[in-house]
Amino acid sequence: MPVSEFTLIYRFFSALGRGEAVDLSVGDDCAILRLDAGERLATSVDTMVEGVHFPADTFPEDIGYRAVSAAASDLAAMGARPLGMTLALTLPAADELWLHAFSQGIAAAVAEYQLPLVGGDTTRGPLTITVQVLGALPMDRALLRGGAQAGDGVYVSGSLGDAAAALAVLDGEWLPPPDQVEYLLDRFNRPHARIALGRELLGLASAAIDISDGLLADAGHIAAASGARLRIEPALLPLSPALRGHTSPEQARQWALTGGDDYELCFCLPPGVEPPAGCTLVGRVEPGSGVDCGLDMPAAAGYQHF
Amino acid sequence: MPVSEFTLIYRFFSALGRGEAVDLSVGDDCAILRLDAGERLATSVDTMVEGVHFPADTFPEDIGYRAVSAAASDLAAMGARPLGMTLALTLPAADELWLHAFSQGIAAAVAEYQLPLVGGDTTRGPLTITVQVLGALPMDRALLRGGAQAGDGVYVSGSLGDAAAALAVLDGEWLPPPDQVEYLLDRFNRPHARIALGRELLGLASAAIDISDGLLADAGHIAAASGARLRIEPALLPLSPALRGHTSPEQARQWALTGGDDYELCFCLPPGVEPPAGCTLVGRVEPGSGVDCGLDMPAAAGYQHF
Repeated sequence: MPVSEFTLIYRFFSALGRGEAVDLSVGDDCAILRLDAGERLATSVDTMVEGVHFPADTFPEDIGYRAVSAAASDLAAMGARPLGMTLALTLPAADELWLHAFSQGIAAAVAEYQLPLVGGDTTRGPLTITVQVLGALPMDRALLRGGAQAGDGVYVSGSLGDAAAALAVLDGEWLPPPDQVEYLLDRFNRPHARIALGRELLGLASAAIDISDGLLADAGHIAAASGARLRIEPALLPLSPALRGHTSPEQARQWALTGGDDYELCFCLPPGVEPPAGCTLVGRVEPGSGVDCGLDMPAAAGYQHF
Repeated sequence: MPVSEFTLIYRFFSALGRGEAVDLSVGDDCAILRLDAGERLATSVDTMVEGVHFPADTFPEDIGYRAVSAAASDLAAMGARPLGMTLALTLPAADELWLHAFSQGIAAAVAEYQLPLVGGDTTRGPLTITVQVLGALPMDRALLRGGAQAGDGVYVSGSLGDAAAALAVLDGEWLPPPDQVEYLLDRFNRPHARIALGRELLGLASAAIDISDGLLADAGHIAAASGARLRIEPALLPLSPALRGHTSPEQARQWALTGGDDYELCFCLPPGVEPPAGCTLVGRVEPGSGVDCGLDMPAAAGYQHF
């Protein structure tokens, strides 16, 4: 049975709006948030469309969790402290079971990132989820794309290519052993924004970006913003056990270089700075421009929305 | 010819991101904004879907302008100072002519509200526009829905019902004289968020809301949040010349009471406080609950998205 917009918002999401920085949450014309003295606001917006950014049969819990993670990943890439988020949800119908499951995924992400849901809008239409994240940064620091210097090391967190491999599984193009399937689908559906790592890198890294469009494409943004070349060594790319031994090295490398949706961080550290645990050196910053991985692969082979 | 996401954003929107409070605009993982000392952040999000919130043949300029106005109207209703906004744009195709026209409408709203466009996301899918607005409020003040007291006057800005009447014109249900048609379509397509009025009311009004779902519905939110009854006198409703004389008084009254999309403000002032210019007394706050307009009309007859 259709329920009104206001009932929707209150029933499923109103418990998710409490947070340290929240003066006023869902229920008035705006939410009100407080920054600490000496802080600035960091904000980003991320949209996911059914059939474009996730398959139509994705579980609603995963759709909700993943949409928040993708947006929160931009806070991680700036080194920002999460303050809160808003959710613009366009739905073909007010299906209460779907909404309940979706809100469970949102709730899991709210808890993981300490990112209360302070406002939203629900509209009728094709399934589209837009998450706007709000975070805090010190007045004098941020992880930008533009600070990489020749001689810096290029690092990535976690392992790369898992989400692209998961899409190959979902598309029926590849069938690894069942436990690897489970791992890969979890990597696609439940990516973790590297919030803690981003905050740790603030003041250490010379440049950073999150890997949403593929390493080559995203490293290309650092190169362009920094006026430098990023040389990536394919042999150094961190691969999960799922990608080692169950497919060709060439296929694994391609996923790791060009596959999007991993939401790991790519960052540069000046010589002598130790990388945080769980991060891997994958290349060097050099004078020049663009990204060079020594392979005949277009530097911007990552996901293009148009 | 399709253009990449990044080209899209930069070509059409990158000139709109400059503003006093903007430390970093479009082009990194997040935008960075500064609040003044002693200020808090106000934020709201608003989505418009083609065929639901505007007819499919609406000019792209108007779609852009109206989407920003609808979102900015929530800043007005809080009394907030505009800081910036982000835009999540879902498009069926990267039509450059459409984008050019759409960006002209966005640019007009950016200039009118001093609301720079600091971030965005473009995705492929059915036309959906989500605008997230960011504003600043003093640490100790905001125009909330919950402060109306028995004895306060209830006021509205401008005239009511024009946008609903425009929809009747667009649906071919009503044909007023041509100059009135022009006026009404402009009211629907180019609504003005009452930013200056909202800031003027900060510290004067006991409660406020913007009229997006219809006066009865929105006054109902003030009543519910304030624990009071709002008595509306239909005879006092401000009607434009288009609605006086060209349709029945009953029809005009119905549009003014239940029609959404006017984006005027409804607010309450304590006895003895003079209303700002251009505002009209339409009723009183009484002990009780709900909204009473003395007519057999459901209090929540406003627009329901589901």
